[in-house]
Amino acid sequence: MDKNKKQIINSGLYLVSTPIGNMEDITLRALNVLKESDIILCEDTRRSGKLLSHLQIKSTLWPYHKFNEKKVSKNIIESIKKNKIVSLISDAGTPTISDPGMILINKCIKENLNVCPIPGSSAVTSAVSVSGFSDQYLFYGFLTKKKMN
Amino acid sequence: MDKNKKQIINSGLYLVSTPIGNMEDITLRALNVLKESDIILCEDTRRSGKLLSHLQIKSTLWPYHKFNEKKVSKNIIESIKKNKIVSLISDAGTPTISDPGMILINKCIKENLNVCPIPGSSAVTSAVSVSGFSDQYLFYGFLTKKKMN
Repeated sequence: MDKNKKQIINSGLYLVSTPIGNMEDITLRALNVLKESDIILCEDTRRSGKLLSHLQIKSTLWPYHKFNEKKVSKNIIESIKKNKIVSLISDAGTPTISDPGMILINKCIKENLNVCPIPGSSAVTSAVSVSGFSDQYLFYGFLTKKKMN
Repeated sequence: MDKNKKQIINSGLYLVSTPIGNMEDITLRALNVLKESDIILCEDTRRSGKLLSHLQIKSTLWPYHKFNEKKVSKNIIESIKKNKIVSLISDAGTPTISDPGMILINKCIKENLNVCPIPGSSAVTSAVSVSGFSDQYLFYGFLTKKKMN
């Protein structure tokens, strides 16, 4: 790979990992993809607006969360079909893991559209790596808020 | 956080995630920590040498792999006690997950030394995020090479 050559980003859905505590925990490729995105989907436009402003990224933000994901997925698919670059970020860490995104990804797979992970911060991976425990683990996600019998 | 202020790196062991395929999959903090490291421990000095040369990082490389980890851990602990900054990287992805490191981490924990994850690329997290499957998963690691009965 020529390190001076800018990587080409094709249209599609990019799952971009964002920092989980330290603002410098973002990759060079994530910065590039977010800058080139026509639309960035995020859980909370106010929260992600702060991050993107810090990173000097001015792409259009669309809210995408568990309450509207079914409704807006159709518009997003249409945008990707029109050759747009769409990124999905969560409040922090890797999108779709304990966060919205699965409905949209499955729609993209069904429509044979490009879906690309941009790896980066992940709470579960960081915790396992530093734990000193075995690296075989079960990720269960958030426990229920209801009291168990 | 003041974005123009350089982050201070204290002595300790840093578990630094490195790219798993795309050389731009490295975080700003990982670059900074690797540059500031007195020693970088890696599985294969030739392989990691290429990555670090690409990233223009000139820190000293020490081999650290499953065949010497017990033997060299003592020297590494001594270096950290002498206020050195030591990074551990694997061939690719997040160190200690299906890679060496657990012996050293447990020694650091026992000696009450600073152990810090620098999150980044992880094969398992990327695969789960893009799969469209449930985000509850069991990570089992590599399967045995022996034929099962």
